Amino acid sequence: MVQLENVYQAAFALKKIIRNTELIKAPKINPEVDLYIKPENLQITGSFKVRGAAYKISRLTEEEKARGVIACSAGNHAQGVALAAARSGIKSVICLPDIAPISKVEATRAYGAEIELVNGVYDDAYQRALQLKDEMGYTFIHPFDDEYVIAGQGTIALEILEQNPDVEAIVVPVGGGGLISGIAYTVKALNPNVKVYGVQAQGAPSMFTSKREGKIVTLDSVNTFCDGIAVKQPGENTFDICSKLVDDIVTVTDDETANAILALMENQKLVAEGAGAVSVAAVMFNKLPVKNKNTVCVVSGGNIDVTILSRIIDRGLLKSGRLEKLSIQLTDKPGQLRDMSATIALTGANIVSVNYEHAEKGSDINSCIIRIELETKNRQHIKEVRTALTNAGFKILNN
Amino acid sequence: MVQLENVYQAAFALKKIIRNTELIKAPKINPEVDLYIKPENLQITGSFKVRGAAYKISRLTEEEKARGVIACSAGNHAQGVALAAARSGIKSVICLPDIAPISKVEATRAYGAEIELVNGVYDDAYQRALQLKDEMGYTFIHPFDDEYVIAGQGTIALEILEQNPDVEAIVVPVGGGGLISGIAYTVKALNPNVKVYGVQAQGAPSMFTSKREGKIVTLDSVNTFCDGIAVKQPGENTFDICSKLVDDIVTVTDDETANAILALMENQKLVAEGAGAVSVAAVMFNKLPVKNKNTVCVVSGGNIDVTILSRIIDRGLLKSGRLEKLSIQLTDKPGQLRDMSATIALTGANIVSVNYEHAEKGSDINSCIIRIELETKNRQHIKEVRTALTNAGFKILNN
Repeated sequence: MVQLENVYQAAFALKKIIRNTELIKAPKINPEVDLYIKPENLQITGSFKVRGAAYKISRLTEEEKARGVIACSAGNHAQGVALAAARSGIKSVICLPDIAPISKVEATRAYGAEIELVNGVYDDAYQRALQLKDEMGYTFIHPFDDEYVIAGQGTIALEILEQNPDVEAIVVPVGGGGLISGIAYTVKALNPNVKVYGVQAQGAPSMFTSKREGKIVTLDSVNTFCDGIAVKQPGENTFDICSKLVDDIVTVTDDETANAILALMENQKLVAEGAGAVSVAAVMFNKLPVKNKNTVCVVSGGNIDVTILSRIIDRGLLKSGRLEKLSIQLTDKPGQLRDMSATIALTGANIVSVNYEHAEKGSDINSCIIRIELETKNRQHIKEVRTALTNAGFKILNN
Repeated sequence: MVQLENVYQAAFALKKIIRNTELIKAPKINPEVDLYIKPENLQITGSFKVRGAAYKISRLTEEEKARGVIACSAGNHAQGVALAAARSGIKSVICLPDIAPISKVEATRAYGAEIELVNGVYDDAYQRALQLKDEMGYTFIHPFDDEYVIAGQGTIALEILEQNPDVEAIVVPVGGGGLISGIAYTVKALNPNVKVYGVQAQGAPSMFTSKREGKIVTLDSVNTFCDGIAVKQPGENTFDICSKLVDDIVTVTDDETANAILALMENQKLVAEGAGAVSVAAVMFNKLPVKNKNTVCVVSGGNIDVTILSRIIDRGLLKSGRLEKLSIQLTDKPGQLRDMSATIALTGANIVSVNYEHAEKGSDINSCIIRIELETKNRQHIKEVRTALTNAGFKILNN
């Protein structure tokens, strides 16, 4: 059972390890909401996970500490455990599937963990971790379903209540449910009037479905780029706390999350990972009853591959009408490209890439197709560009 | 003349307007430097500029306040003046060239300024601002060469000294020199042992050149993507202070700055603009004698267009060997694409885009060229991919 005294004890134990992340006012995300960001992406290791791991480790007996800890994760939990163990001077072993990205493996190793690469997928790595735990006497650090891990995450709520005593709602990303359980438990114990909302990815709605059905549901599969919350089944403790204390859980699409990541970059200069930005997406796209409310969105992490970030920027720009891809049929005669470029230039749109191909099967024999990428101002601007091209006699092949 | 008491007065005047940006430890940028970031990209308006503007405005007489202020800028200064004026309840007019990006115009308007779009370039907008100043009696807020603006920027140094009393070196981006003048003046008045270094873009080295030549130099042109520091000529006050108090000024290339922006995103989860990241680039690429020193890099702003950010990510990935573009000549017969893909797959590289063309002038008539983009681990990995392709009989056309 999570206890409030454990949360306070955790806050004390974490003082020398974590950063006290200050709230950042975010007036542009949704002008109808009095919104603040709790930027746990700026936390050491780039996510909140170090809080629960470090408190759990602080609770081990000297004998357990002497033997060391083990965890299974390719993500934020691995880095949190590795750093927390190193700071406490104890050994950590992290089991990862050998398909894990090299960057995550190296980051975890750099924080001081011993890495055990396991042939196969996550479940194989998990089985190997349990086996090593039994053989070597390591303590297994669960990523979410542990009372001390939950209490450690609850320290975020203490900070929010201290930094913003007028808070009316807290919005939290949900995967296995450790973070929201710690926050909901702490907030409801101290100020039950504060609403606590959870957000999941539409492609991985395990806690969402479980809460609605009143029992733990295991998803067959998950499908979202928010890898940090792509969890098939909530924990027993976390499900219990979420059932009783969380006011509501909603879901957001990956497109909405991509837009939230973009808005955090543009308006707040913060890099968030998908799992970290679902809370902001929910407020941005009005999924929650927080209009005019003093609301804190926990942005839980920022560990996102920049190559994915680059794609998300493009996806977000497309969705908000600031990037458009057109396929245009040109007659294969001189001057066509010039005329098309001139038409586009007059609209104020900016061509950023061009691909030019000769006729495809099904198109006129004397025609070619040009595929262009344009920077545009908004959806209305895209319509203007399309109309201008059509009026100038060009045939646009895609809608 | 800048006075230390003005800096302290500015700190008081700014309390209700600005955020006190907390230092963030940055251990991965350069492992040989004990490095902290002063994240003024997280400042309200996304840059430090609001500090100087707000203090300057607080010093106006009631009569001057009643008439309002005017400034000329398409960037951070415009937003700083607009916000500071709005918070003081006074009118602001911002002159911008009509070629300014719509996003910057709208952002400035949103902070409450009256916008005057001027046909032409920056100099035309500047002339119009001076004309309006005379006609309407507005007070002109200079972006850097003003004792109160400089004192306002100096408040950053007070915060750094309080947050990190053991600081040994402060590294500051330099455009017109207002920021570094405020910091150098304040730091040297309080603790002359702390080194203050300036960093400029190699394509806009106005203060760098002026300091070396011992007189104000005006550049014919500037060429850098760091628009916030693309200044042709330092101010008289700022040149004077930099000559006397700044320990050294160095330059960094745009490629180095792009890499620093990427490192700030990946390691610190922070979005910086080019002008804001030159300080980090200088430390990252060992341009300054700060090895093992307690060093603070001021990241002065984060207002960068995300479309540019997307290109910078690609540029940074290319430079660090995590993205590679290859042009490969294939014989035009079945199975070639399959064989090439299989060869690449075995190296662990990931193909992200493919362009396939038939023969160009100068190449074999029965050949075609495939251009691929690959995600790779590092430069060594790129060599392995190239060797594997060459050994498999493929001809790589680019080096």
